[in-house]
Amino acid sequence: VDPRRGRNLRISELSRSSGVPVPTIKYYLREGLLPSGTPMARNQADYGEDHHHRLRLIRVLMEVGGLGVASVRRVVEAIGNERLPIHQVLGVAHHALGPPLDTGPVPEDVALARSEVDGFLADLGWKVSEEAPARRPLADALVALRRLGLGYDVDAFRPYANLADELAGWEFGQVRAGTSRADAVESAIVGTVVFEAALTALRRLAQEHHSATRFGRGRILGAG
Amino acid sequence: VDPRRGRNLRISELSRSSGVPVPTIKYYLREGLLPSGTPMARNQADYGEDHHHRLRLIRVLMEVGGLGVASVRRVVEAIGNERLPIHQVLGVAHHALGPPLDTGPVPEDVALARSEVDGFLADLGWKVSEEAPARRPLADALVALRRLGLGYDVDAFRPYANLADELAGWEFGQVRAGTSRADAVESAIVGTVVFEAALTALRRLAQEHHSATRFGRGRILGAG
Repeated sequence: VDPRRGRNLRISELSRSSGVPVPTIKYYLREGLLPSGTPMARNQADYGEDHHHRLRLIRVLMEVGGLGVASVRRVVEAIGNERLPIHQVLGVAHHALGPPLDTGPVPEDVALARSEVDGFLADLGWKVSEEAPARRPLADALVALRRLGLGYDVDAFRPYANLADELAGWEFGQVRAGTSRADAVESAIVGTVVFEAALTALRRLAQEHHSATRFGRGRILGAG
Repeated sequence: VDPRRGRNLRISELSRSSGVPVPTIKYYLREGLLPSGTPMARNQADYGEDHHHRLRLIRVLMEVGGLGVASVRRVVEAIGNERLPIHQVLGVAHHALGPPLDTGPVPEDVALARSEVDGFLADLGWKVSEEAPARRPLADALVALRRLGLGYDVDAFRPYANLADELAGWEFGQVRAGTSRADAVESAIVGTVVFEAALTALRRLAQEHHSATRFGRGRILGAG
């Protein structure tokens, strides 16, 4: 018996304790995001702490990660599949978060940027699958810089890559030995989704701080 | 005479050279995202390099930054207002990128997290306005961690804050003395939007790399 299953809740209590409306919970049950409760008398079911926890995770994936129902289903199925190695669960999460696959032909400058990004990652020596969805937005960023006439080379990303490498190394180093599979999987996904949102917010705040320090007090640079 | 206005283009040529369809260009003109061309004979207008460049910027703000028409209009108006200090142009861009303002009452745990984030930023000594939109997603990230029962303190963000501070310091240090106002403004906005997308992509790729190194080869941790 899983100790987290200690307390049993009716669906109305699950709704109250989680803040998620009953019709939404029923929708998640129908869509397979949430496992069924234990059947009880008179067409009712009981829900445990696992359901409560899963509901929270669903909301974080949707609200912080911006995932849709189909993507959340893929992530929770991967988490629930005990035979799937942790590394692959993270891959499923990345695919769910990543931009959708190409639907049409790829413009020439995009194709060129993608092959440059592939070469850049190979040069860094990173173990990254060829289908990793994050390769595409990185190439798109390079294309954007070039279309703006800023003439950047893919090497402009190197300081950011070094920093991301340092950060991910530190983050994975935080996973203690002996951590259960469930906890390791969850902290990897939460790390991706929640700390990514936090890092983005902190970067903008740090930019405001440095902009205030450098350009503050109404100083106008040049005349251009 | 602005040297960038050298070449004159009909709207059809502007469309061809930018890859943006004529009806879309007309829409941007009507919505005030793009300044009018120079009026010519027979109900036509000519467009210059400025228009070409502005079109590229609009597309980057929309496609990479995910901005809508109203937000792009605010950003380009801020760029075009020569009396607006650079620091405030960046503020306008951050407001355009940031999450929309609260529409309803704020839950208790969110209000608590926001005041903790305010204290955290004050403690860091960052010069950040009280209305900075990025304060809210940072508080939301803290709320998400807590709702998942992970019991994090706002200090969990400190390593990310230090890294963001280091990065922004380096980025603003790249702006050379004597840079024109137009170029400084644009590089600040591009830095926010494009390099943010690149950093997010690189972080996911670095996570995949470290996950492969740590959890790869199908190794399953614990029994969880």
